[in-house]
Amino acid sequence: MTPRYDTVTFLSDYGHADEFVGVVHSVIRSTAPHATIIDLTHEIAPFDVRAAGLLLARSAGHLCPGVVVAVVDPGVGTERRAVAVEIGGGESVLVGPDNGVLAPVVALCGGADRAVELDDPAYHLPTAGSTFDGRDVFAPVAGHLCNGVPLEELGTLVDPAGLLPGIMPVSRFEDGVLDAEVLWVDRYGNAQLNIGPDDLTGWAEPGEPLEVSWSEGTPGAGFLAPERDGGLERAGSRIAVWAETFAGVGAGRLGLVLDSYGLVALTVDRGSAADELGLVAGTSVRLRPVDEEGRPAAVTTPVGLGPTRTPEDPREEPTP
Amino acid sequence: MTPRYDTVTFLSDYGHADEFVGVVHSVIRSTAPHATIIDLTHEIAPFDVRAAGLLLARSAGHLCPGVVVAVVDPGVGTERRAVAVEIGGGESVLVGPDNGVLAPVVALCGGADRAVELDDPAYHLPTAGSTFDGRDVFAPVAGHLCNGVPLEELGTLVDPAGLLPGIMPVSRFEDGVLDAEVLWVDRYGNAQLNIGPDDLTGWAEPGEPLEVSWSEGTPGAGFLAPERDGGLERAGSRIAVWAETFAGVGAGRLGLVLDSYGLVALTVDRGSAADELGLVAGTSVRLRPVDEEGRPAAVTTPVGLGPTRTPEDPREEPTP
Amino acid sequence: MTPRYDTVTFLSDYGHADEFVGVVHSVIRSTAPHATIIDLTHEIAPFDVRAAGLLLARSAGHLCPGVVVAVVDPGVGTERRAVAVEIGGGESVLVGPDNGVLAPVVALCGGADRAVELDDPAYHLPTAGSTFDGRDVFAPVAGHLCNGVPLEELGTLVDPAGLLPGIMPVSRFEDGVLDAEVLWVDRYGNAQLNIGPDDLTGWAEPGEPLEVSWSEGTPGAGFLAPERDGGLERAGSRIAVWAETFAGVGAGRLGLVLDSYGLVALTVDRGSAADELGLVAGTSVRLRPVDEEGRPAAVTTPVGLGPTRTPEDPREEPTP
Repeated sequence: MTPRYDTVTFLSDYGHADEFVGVVHSVIRSTAPHATIIDLTHEIAPFDVRAAGLLLARSAGHLCPGVVVAVVDPGVGTERRAVAVEIGGGESVLVGPDNGVLAPVVALCGGADRAVELDDPAYHLPTAGSTFDGRDVFAPVAGHLCNGVPLEELGTLVDPAGLLPGIMPVSRFEDGVLDAEVLWVDRYGNAQLNIGPDDLTGWAEPGEPLEVSWSEGTPGAGFLAPERDGGLERAGSRIAVWAETFAGVGAGRLGLVLDSYGLVALTVDRGSAADELGLVAGTSVRLRPVDEEGRPAAVTTPVGLGPTRTPEDPREEPTP
Repeated sequence: MTPRYDTVTFLSDYGHADEFVGVVHSVIRSTAPHATIIDLTHEIAPFDVRAAGLLLARSAGHLCPGVVVAVVDPGVGTERRAVAVEIGGGESVLVGPDNGVLAPVVALCGGADRAVELDDPAYHLPTAGSTFDGRDVFAPVAGHLCNGVPLEELGTLVDPAGLLPGIMPVSRFEDGVLDAEVLWVDRYGNAQLNIGPDDLTGWAEPGEPLEVSWSEGTPGAGFLAPERDGGLERAGSRIAVWAETFAGVGAGRLGLVLDSYGLVALTVDRGSAADELGLVAGTSVRLRPVDEEGRPAAVTTPVGLGPTRTPEDPREEPTP
Repeated sequence: MTPRYDTVTFLSDYGHADEFVGVVHSVIRSTAPHATIIDLTHEIAPFDVRAAGLLLARSAGHLCPGVVVAVVDPGVGTERRAVAVEIGGGESVLVGPDNGVLAPVVALCGGADRAVELDDPAYHLPTAGSTFDGRDVFAPVAGHLCNGVPLEELGTLVDPAGLLPGIMPVSRFEDGVLDAEVLWVDRYGNAQLNIGPDDLTGWAEPGEPLEVSWSEGTPGAGFLAPERDGGLERAGSRIAVWAETFAGVGAGRLGLVLDSYGLVALTVDRGSAADELGLVAGTSVRLRPVDEEGRPAAVTTPVGLGPTRTPEDPREEPTP
């Protein structure tokens, strides 16, 4: 058989304290000694499928073609399917549980060509329990793919349209405010939002200040909740500068900066925006213009019988 | 010289904050550029020889043949021996301190064929101090073994029977109760016990509940202590289900499940059994049947002059 | 083009939680598939240029020849230069920001042969923002160097003498006391000082006790401050033994031991000197002889109008 792929990119929530990562390397190398393994990360929080999916999507543009193994798998040992998904006309194959972890990168790469459920045990390792599919299913399958085993031999072809989708939060611009969400807080405390520079143009200007307010930072609980009547349980608000570079923000000030992934991040030069503001992945963030005196510009004035909105003191805004 | 091994598997308690792991990689690569190095883990707690020995034994069945370097070495710089141990008819050589860290995997693999004390400095690096044997002794020796240097040239042949043994806790079934011990708590909070399914058959049934009680979780202090009069300073007790899969346990319930190493683990589906119960490696765990009403079944009734046992309230059981 | 280097050694403050390290590996491998990448560490504290520079210098003697990428880069996205520095007659090339992180290893290796500012974007990746130079500048440059691209093609040749120097703290022996500084605290709590055995010979004897006193352990704030009138805001003092091996220190005692880098470290056998004494990188440490009764030997007696020194109780010593 002619080897087909020579790189396996591997990410998981295994951490480094146990032997899981090393054992998966061993099994891949035993199966396909010619392959090089690149560890993308193994420090995904246990079972955080969303974080792993976003991380893989962020990385996709710079990964080597080949096999990608993504193991964040709260449903291991249950009925969830194990799958291999071909993308890019066969340039790469994604291997992992069908729980949404692969969905963002599949979407980003133009969709799946083909997919199989990995249900042929001939390509797995025999196992005592059913709790370490990284070792027993995904690693040997990755090795066999590197060795040139055709995708369709690894199991039953399934309709790629039936793969579990990921949930990508969308931003929303309405009544002069932009509701966004923290996608990711990196090691330096920069908080990437789900908006690009395009989402700011037209109503905000580079170099100009904006008001930033944010919700309580409960991880995973702060997803955009439109049913909340446009209200946001704000944990705080600050003025930020939309700057073109870190250096343009100014020491100690809060900035909105184009990050290295093409998205806009909340950042504090040589400080941690996430620590200062209490942001985590999933925190809701609202941006709006401020007037010359630094007060939020009331673009539209709601009229109603409820308590009057006082944009100057957003903490008094009624919440459901 | 003909290269003999092309994989070095490496585990240590070095952590990743310092340069230790990278420097050992560099020395191995300088000595044997053809070898691939697989990091099993470097996050063993400092000096925890027992945890490293167990981790290596758990991994053994899935490692690539070749050289294994295990450096958890509280006695570095003292009289303890550095050794290389051949196993499996020369399929692999284990390199490390003779302090018990290699013993569990040697025993698991059918014993040592040959062993040498690494006392020939010609195969070491010259060094300023004597505190980094990973870099100065074990790494170059691993490289030389990969290059085909025969084992017996690396130092003085010693009797493998004289290597320091590891201490493996054994379980004990008596008077209808099974006394076991936590071997390992993994990243997800599953607590592997030193029992297999065979230890449960005959007196427990898959799908049926068991009472689980456990000792105070002082690391290393909770080893099976038969001299404690069969008494166990219990920190708590719970009913667990002996289930065949994680999914069979039921959400939020405590389960006894066959893990991916063939042993039985205490587990909570998508939760941490270790956190809920306060378990650490070394915690004593006692299992016993419960009757139809969920009360511990008193298989034997002790007769004596001491206070009456009340199995319904195990906390009242007399302890020494 | 003929490949020139086959090893890339990589250190950074990226940590392992994000995908940064894996993405840099991917870019290097995409550019130079023949190269092997060795991770020295990625757990440098964010932006700690000094720690990274010292770590690289400690490792230098054992690294494979080739390309070294060092990315600790608080100034990314600002005017700071990105550079490649050739050392050892072309044996190795160091790649990173010109912020002092490369300076200690350049000095240790006899100075730079040549240096270029990496200002030719033809050898970089196109990027959205300007915050991930590890991926967009340093990784592709490392790959091109491995492939044989001559240094001078990567940008503008600059005078190596103009590279930002590192600041190496120097020790000082005066009036019978040796003022030193903690360079590094390792995983085991050993505190490496900026002194070698030569700094002790002549006034101290192996096997003999010394008094060790140390300043408040504010990271980075405890650098040798000669302007402090020789005074040292002491957080504590202890008697240590200058021992030739760990074993010579004795259980539970504080030792001064030659470490594996040729420097003297404060150490507690199977304990953490750093935890016991509250030492961190940058802590000032003062050593002086003690008399037969274990009291600091007053080598010189200061004469003055201030309060009398009572060497028996160093905490009463006047401080500025």
